Amino acid sequence: MEPRAKLWIEHEGKLALSDYRVRLLLLIEQTGSLAEAAEAMQLSYRRAWGKVREIEHNLGLQLVESAAGGAGGGGSRLTEDGRRLVALYQRFHDAVVADLGHEFTRTFGE
Amino acid sequence: MEPRAKLWIEHEGKLALSDYRVRLLLLIEQTGSLAEAAEAMQLSYRRAWGKVREIEHNLGLQLVESAAGGAGGGGSRLTEDGRRLVALYQRFHDAVVADLGHEFTRTFGE
Repeated sequence: MEPRAKLWIEHEGKLALSDYRVRLLLLIEQTGSLAEAAEAMQLSYRRAWGKVREIEHNLGLQLVESAAGGAGGGGSRLTEDGRRLVALYQRFHDAVVADLGHEFTRTFGE
Repeated sequence: MEPRAKLWIEHEGKLALSDYRVRLLLLIEQTGSLAEAAEAMQLSYRRAWGKVREIEHNLGLQLVESAAGGAGGGGSRLTEDGRRLVALYQRFHDAVVADLGHEFTRTFGE
C-alpha cells in the first residue's frame, strides 16, 4: 500500500495555489514565456493567461510580469513575489510528502 | 491562506482507501446497514455495494459482512479487518492533517 495526497492552498475560501498552478508558474520561469509554459501543459495561451490572472487575483499579488513587446511577444517571467511563493510552496509540498510517508509507515507498518 | 489536502491510499496502483471510502465503511459500522449508509451518502444501494466490493477486491481483504437475511435484509457490519483498517486510516489521516498545519505555518509563517 502507498499513501497519496493532493495538496492545495486556499485564500479566503478560494483556491490560490496547487501543484498544478505552481507547475504553470515554474514553467513560465523556466521557459521565460507564457506561450511555451501553456504549450507544455497543453493549455491554450488564453486559458493559461486566465489561470495566472486568477491566481494573482485570489492572492492579491502580482506573480508574473511581461517584458516589453506585449503579452507573449516579449516574454514573461515571475516577479519577486512569484518566485518567493513558488519556492515556499515547493518547500511546503516536499515537507508534507515526506511527512506523509513517515505517518503512513508509523501507522500501517512497513 | 489555509492548506488543504486530499488523501488516499493505493494498493498495487489502484485506489484502495480514501476519505470518501472510509466514510462509507464507518457509516456501515455506525448504522449496521449498508442501505442506510448508502442513503446517508446519497448513493444507490447497488453503487454502495459495488464500492465496498471494489475496496475489498483492491485490498484483497473482506471488510464488510452481512448477517443472515441476505444482503441488506439482515444488516451489515465491518469485519475485524474492516474495523482495524478504518481505525488505522483515521489515525493516519488525523496525523497528516496535523502535519499539514505544522508544515504550512513553518513554511509560510502565521
